[in-house]
Amino acid sequence: MNTALRVDQARLWESLMEMARIGATANGGVTRLALSDEDRAGRDLFVRWARELGCAVRVDAMGNIFARYAGGDDALAPVLTGSHGDSQPLGGRFDGIYGVLAGIELLRTLQDADVRPRRAVEVVNWTNEEGSRFAPAMIGSGVACGVFDLEYGLSRTDRDGHTIGAELARIGYAGAPIQPLSVHAAFELHIEQGPILEAEGLTIGVVTGGQGQRWYEGHFSGQAAHAGTTPMERRRDASLGLAELILAVNEIGNAFAPDGRATVGSVRLTPNSRNVVPGRADFTIEFRHPEDAVLDRMDQRLHAAITSIGQRRHLEAALKQVFSYAPVAFDAHCVALVQEATERLGYAHRRMISGAGHDVLYVSGLAPAAMIFVPCVDGISHNEAEEISPQWAAAGADVLLQAVLAAAA
Amino acid sequence: MNTALRVDQARLWESLMEMARIGATANGGVTRLALSDEDRAGRDLFVRWARELGCAVRVDAMGNIFARYAGGDDALAPVLTGSHGDSQPLGGRFDGIYGVLAGIELLRTLQDADVRPRRAVEVVNWTNEEGSRFAPAMIGSGVACGVFDLEYGLSRTDRDGHTIGAELARIGYAGAPIQPLSVHAAFELHIEQGPILEAEGLTIGVVTGGQGQRWYEGHFSGQAAHAGTTPMERRRDASLGLAELILAVNEIGNAFAPDGRATVGSVRLTPNSRNVVPGRADFTIEFRHPEDAVLDRMDQRLHAAITSIGQRRHLEAALKQVFSYAPVAFDAHCVALVQEATERLGYAHRRMISGAGHDVLYVSGLAPAAMIFVPCVDGISHNEAEEISPQWAAAGADVLLQAVLAAAA
Repeated sequence: MNTALRVDQARLWESLMEMARIGATANGGVTRLALSDEDRAGRDLFVRWARELGCAVRVDAMGNIFARYAGGDDALAPVLTGSHGDSQPLGGRFDGIYGVLAGIELLRTLQDADVRPRRAVEVVNWTNEEGSRFAPAMIGSGVACGVFDLEYGLSRTDRDGHTIGAELARIGYAGAPIQPLSVHAAFELHIEQGPILEAEGLTIGVVTGGQGQRWYEGHFSGQAAHAGTTPMERRRDASLGLAELILAVNEIGNAFAPDGRATVGSVRLTPNSRNVVPGRADFTIEFRHPEDAVLDRMDQRLHAAITSIGQRRHLEAALKQVFSYAPVAFDAHCVALVQEATERLGYAHRRMISGAGHDVLYVSGLAPAAMIFVPCVDGISHNEAEEISPQWAAAGADVLLQAVLAAAA
Repeated sequence: MNTALRVDQARLWESLMEMARIGATANGGVTRLALSDEDRAGRDLFVRWARELGCAVRVDAMGNIFARYAGGDDALAPVLTGSHGDSQPLGGRFDGIYGVLAGIELLRTLQDADVRPRRAVEVVNWTNEEGSRFAPAMIGSGVACGVFDLEYGLSRTDRDGHTIGAELARIGYAGAPIQPLSVHAAFELHIEQGPILEAEGLTIGVVTGGQGQRWYEGHFSGQAAHAGTTPMERRRDASLGLAELILAVNEIGNAFAPDGRATVGSVRLTPNSRNVVPGRADFTIEFRHPEDAVLDRMDQRLHAAITSIGQRRHLEAALKQVFSYAPVAFDAHCVALVQEATERLGYAHRRMISGAGHDVLYVSGLAPAAMIFVPCVDGISHNEAEEISPQWAAAGADVLLQAVLAAAA
């Protein structure tokens, strides 16, 4: 392998900016929802660039696109990289597509240097990672990796009643039957979407795994009552249960810092009128932590808190877990390849856990995998203001290039 | 005056039930929004019943309807009673209309007994007390009592863009120019809309005044952030400010019990998504207490709490008062007439403050006034389940009859 190879920072940035014109928004972001006309245009550009590299382009029944750069021994399982091309509504220019276009830049660098690794290198553009048009998120990689049935994947429906299957046919990306993925090793490069790297002055995050998640929904029920005529001591005010719950959830997150996360993101009071004592308070909770055993402890504390609050406040309490996602520990060898490449390139770095979900977490169930993070300004993502520097973009792509070359050697 | 006179319990109840058929809902309530077709039908029935009593019926420019039962000396200022005929959406069968129909029953009782007090007795049916179709509440009595201009009143608009003025014309209740109210004394009979009388086993509330109110709107601003990638210690979570505020407001209410009320009735998190740390939390607050000096202290505590929470949680805090309503102390002589009538009739009773707003609070700025409360089941009001007993209805009407006779003598 060639440890002196470097990507072309200017060319990578130009490709990012050219892609960002598709679905560009007034405030400098993009809206390129999964399987929209904008997503089709982005896919078409990706396919054109892949074909210009001489890649074989394969589309599967979920619309996942694989651009294959042939290896010296093309019978061997390939090294997989890439990410997703869809965006959030009013999203940023880098979330997902940066990993896809760094893969294209990686292949261009190999082609320019006339380097052909022993194994093929495939760059994937996954379908509907964001989950903002079709729930759940990561459905393309989920089906490809056997987590979900194809039938389930194709039948997911957006708010206007369009299915993934129908929209894939409409935009011309309904491909061949799903085959079991054959992957030697996988690397996904992504912006951190959090504040840690920038705050610590680091360029590269060596991602060792993904956090487990537990999602909950619940409510407290009391008695809606006239805010003027109901004495304080006769109230069963559901908002008081909610208030205590928000603080208790935050305490649970703090108790398992720095890796633990605990969030009450969404609440609804009923009737939510200024002159009525709230009779009901609905809420969502999510916990994240890299260890299942810790998630179990967070879960226990949550149940204890809700029971205690309900009793103390004379409220009925309900809680159900609506989703769970097991923690992922990436392959030690793949992580080591990322770390060695980072050290060889001299970038300030740290090992870290991915707080967000990413397609490669599903791939890691089938094949050795790891991830690379680069900083994003102020940790802002899922937002038109999402920003990275051309230097960060190239640094991440160089680490990816070196890790892929090492794995493909 | 005739202290032996009693209303006809069955006739009063039949009138209540007949009126309740107008706008009746599936679950036993009524929807008779101000100036709707149902409100017109209710007004027409009131006017028919008043005319059957030989009353002169006067409608003013705000659609307030005055049914005048002539007095022995009709040049004297009348005694005014009545309430409002509009309801909340999916409201109850007694809120407001009970006071109107008890007035009709009172006049029927006088007519049957061939009693003609020295002063005329007027039964009023006020326009848009509830404020649920047109804000603000109590706009009909407010304009009649000089609190608001007629132009302001007529230009209030519902969510479909209809004005009070246009709707009054549409339903045929746009009446004569507003004249200064000439009232010797005023009494409003109403359901308590709270739990106190029933809980204490009492039949009559002798209402000595109305609570002052302060309404506020505010928010905390932090930073919306990815719930998976943002460590606990780097968050500026607006929901934590909201949670502390809800508890602080409740503490303020408790500190001024039993008369104080403090409510956070409405909240909104932004973006209110399960996977996003809330960046902003908006809230409403309302305080009620019969003493302005106490409301001032509640206000001071609220400002101190918001400042302290904002600093401790690293959130920007904003608070503005959007409405205030001064406490009302009813006329001591009118209150005494209610209390004497209650004692003479032998009803268990207590003196109390009205926690809710009522039209007679505006009238009390112009003329001596008082209020009478009867219990409602479980204190439930503004709800289809609102319920009173025929006995309570008659008891309140008898107290009203006796107080009106004493004032009109």
